[in-house]
Amino acid sequence: MKNEEIMKKDLKYNWHPCTQMKDHEFLPLIPIKKGEGVYLIDFDDNRYIDAISSWWVNLFGHSNPYINKKIKEQLETLEHVIFAGFTHPQAIRLSERLCNLTGFDKVFYADNGSSAVEVAIKMSFHYWKNKGEVRPLFFSLKNSYHGETIGALSVGDVGLYKDTYREILIKNITLPIPENKSDEAAEEALKKARVFFERYYKEISALIVEPLIQCAGNMKMHSPLFVKGLKKLCEEFNIHLIADEIAVGFGRSGSMFACEQAGIKPDFMCLSKGLTGGYLPLSVVLTTDKIYSAFYCDYKELKAFLHSHSYTANALGCAAANATLDIFENAKWTEKNGKWELKMENEKCKMENEELNVLEYNKIISSYIWERLQKFKELKNVKEIRQTGMISAIEMIDYPFEKRMGLKVYEFGLKNGVLLRPLGNVIYFMPPYVIKKEEVDKMIDVAFNGIKKL
Amino acid sequence: MKNEEIMKKDLKYNWHPCTQMKDHEFLPLIPIKKGEGVYLIDFDDNRYIDAISSWWVNLFGHSNPYINKKIKEQLETLEHVIFAGFTHPQAIRLSERLCNLTGFDKVFYADNGSSAVEVAIKMSFHYWKNKGEVRPLFFSLKNSYHGETIGALSVGDVGLYKDTYREILIKNITLPIPENKSDEAAEEALKKARVFFERYYKEISALIVEPLIQCAGNMKMHSPLFVKGLKKLCEEFNIHLIADEIAVGFGRSGSMFACEQAGIKPDFMCLSKGLTGGYLPLSVVLTTDKIYSAFYCDYKELKAFLHSHSYTANALGCAAANATLDIFENAKWTEKNGKWELKMENEKCKMENEELNVLEYNKIISSYIWERLQKFKELKNVKEIRQTGMISAIEMIDYPFEKRMGLKVYEFGLKNGVLLRPLGNVIYFMPPYVIKKEEVDKMIDVAFNGIKKL
Repeated sequence: MKNEEIMKKDLKYNWHPCTQMKDHEFLPLIPIKKGEGVYLIDFDDNRYIDAISSWWVNLFGHSNPYINKKIKEQLETLEHVIFAGFTHPQAIRLSERLCNLTGFDKVFYADNGSSAVEVAIKMSFHYWKNKGEVRPLFFSLKNSYHGETIGALSVGDVGLYKDTYREILIKNITLPIPENKSDEAAEEALKKARVFFERYYKEISALIVEPLIQCAGNMKMHSPLFVKGLKKLCEEFNIHLIADEIAVGFGRSGSMFACEQAGIKPDFMCLSKGLTGGYLPLSVVLTTDKIYSAFYCDYKELKAFLHSHSYTANALGCAAANATLDIFENAKWTEKNGKWELKMENEKCKMENEELNVLEYNKIISSYIWERLQKFKELKNVKEIRQTGMISAIEMIDYPFEKRMGLKVYEFGLKNGVLLRPLGNVIYFMPPYVIKKEEVDKMIDVAFNGIKKL
Repeated sequence: MKNEEIMKKDLKYNWHPCTQMKDHEFLPLIPIKKGEGVYLIDFDDNRYIDAISSWWVNLFGHSNPYINKKIKEQLETLEHVIFAGFTHPQAIRLSERLCNLTGFDKVFYADNGSSAVEVAIKMSFHYWKNKGEVRPLFFSLKNSYHGETIGALSVGDVGLYKDTYREILIKNITLPIPENKSDEAAEEALKKARVFFERYYKEISALIVEPLIQCAGNMKMHSPLFVKGLKKLCEEFNIHLIADEIAVGFGRSGSMFACEQAGIKPDFMCLSKGLTGGYLPLSVVLTTDKIYSAFYCDYKELKAFLHSHSYTANALGCAAANATLDIFENAKWTEKNGKWELKMENEKCKMENEELNVLEYNKIISSYIWERLQKFKELKNVKEIRQTGMISAIEMIDYPFEKRMGLKVYEFGLKNGVLLRPLGNVIYFMPPYVIKKEEVDKMIDVAFNGIKKL
């Protein structure tokens, strides 16, 4: 079967996420036959560079041989077991590693990013209740996105996803954000935020923040000073800080976690997406012994956190996550004749020449992307280019939304072998970490020509 | 390593779902080394019959060779691709099969049961908004459970999970339920429910119902007449009906879906848990072309359903689900020398003697369970036994909750090789469908002795 035929069958049955389905009267819906590294291959044998890591999840390429192997091994022993009263080695190993990486003490599992955010806000609210206080409100940031279940959507701010549901959301208070990445803008926003803290702090359980980059909010980037300042305010006013690192965690921001750059430790950290290397839905909320101990008491006091999902700490998902962390820990990039290759240390390859770990190699790639991005300044319809770590964005001029200029760049990308998925007037790159320089070139050239052609 | 040592390590890092963690000062937390059919095997080599299918998810046994094989095949081609603008054969095949099985037209994917419920309530609310009406309330049933994210929790009623969060939930209206499984009780409850419909219908988007069995609500069972009557009321007052078959779907109720027994087709059906045979988190919301078409229009009208999760329609999850449906479709139970065995048709085994499909064999097993349950009536501390399909429950007398009698039965079960996880004073059985009669005997004998000993 070819693309056309498969697409027709799909459209008979599937209602796709975040899609006006009528668009597919003119827009191709692309059936994927195979994934291979940074490439997605369709049934007409077209190859696309997955420049957005399939919604920001894939880290080490599609059909990664090492992660595949580890999931297959896990299938032979245990696919899943109830995680109440029971446990399994993959979950223990993963939790230990995540705590060691982040400095947190305890791990609570869920299945997707939204659910992790729901867990964090419930846990924060419940903490204060266990301490005898009712704090029914949350602070979140202007332009923020935290998922689309009712709780997560309520603490978000992107109108496109939220406005329709206003009557069935819970109340939250939106804080101002910096206008740009500068430290001055951060200071300005913090000054304004303080007014909100002074006014509402008694009713607020937590402030939830996407540190450094508001991804769904058009890849808006902030100075680390902003997050640092918010943490200080939270401490001063005795409010929890929830760091939503679902999109920015696992190296996307340039460091393993974005909070590291701000030098802060929040009370809760939510992780998902890259957690399993882009393989399986799994999420965690990391927290501290201080929070944990407020729930730890005799059952009869009824203070336990009784939240659950059936597939909590799914063994296959945890196996994928441990395999992903193995790659971060043990894989090395080596250069030979100008070509870089990523190999696991235990493959006993000759480690001649330079040898870089994942985050070090990412620095080379992101510098290279930044260098290549400079030429977008020539384009009259480009307003700004920006980058934080492995996330780079090109903001076009303020085309009215009905013009759907981003969609035109998307279509151009597909025709030319690159999956870009602009957010409004913002074209961005968030590729898998196994991308090579020549693939960066292609990705950037296609975006450049797509924008130029508008 | 042995259980004790692994348990200690787990408790250092993991915060388990639906658990007062202090309980593990006296209660063992059991690390599982391997799953094998109906058995879970720990690191001290104890074997437990998984009488609750690991929170009602496992259908065809742990480490099922056929499902394992199908996931491994999928790993070789594609682990995951973004499901906006893209698709893949496993999702198309699964959606087609689910539509054929249920009579629905369209499938929207999510990752877990809670998220599916959130999708259904948002979709229903959004439908009315697209039609020009704002209906900010939902009907749900007394004693109902639909998950624990804020939206799902709001339409639930089990106080244990809900009461703490009352100040951060959205409003819903709770309808009365029948006192027992009889038709008379159903009629009585419907009469009372009508009063609510008459009073609130203009503000209500949808009624959400767990058809036939309220599982988390202590395995309370209703007559099919009750669901049928609710559907009639929804039609009369022009309100959507959402059937939450997350726990009862895929044969648990005795038919493939519980709605079949009531002879009704709701506007939305939520499925998860057994969908992947107990392997991976995946959920779907099934709906009709009528609902779908209210969102289908030019993008500029801004009526699209923009909900999304990163791992929507994950290829590995869909592969597990298709493998599970293969077993329903093609596997046959055959008897030889009094022993039953489940084989795939393509295994070309000699199909001598009797040959039964999954649901037919389940009828034999559930009749056998029911027969064996009768002896619980002898026990003075048993109030009622009840059964619907593959779900059977023993309700003990009203011990005060502080006595934690269910927990005592749980501990007794663990010591004797059966994983029971009572709900308050209700002991129940919801085993994988590959359970054999001798394993049923053991499961029931252990529960009997555990209750008798109290």
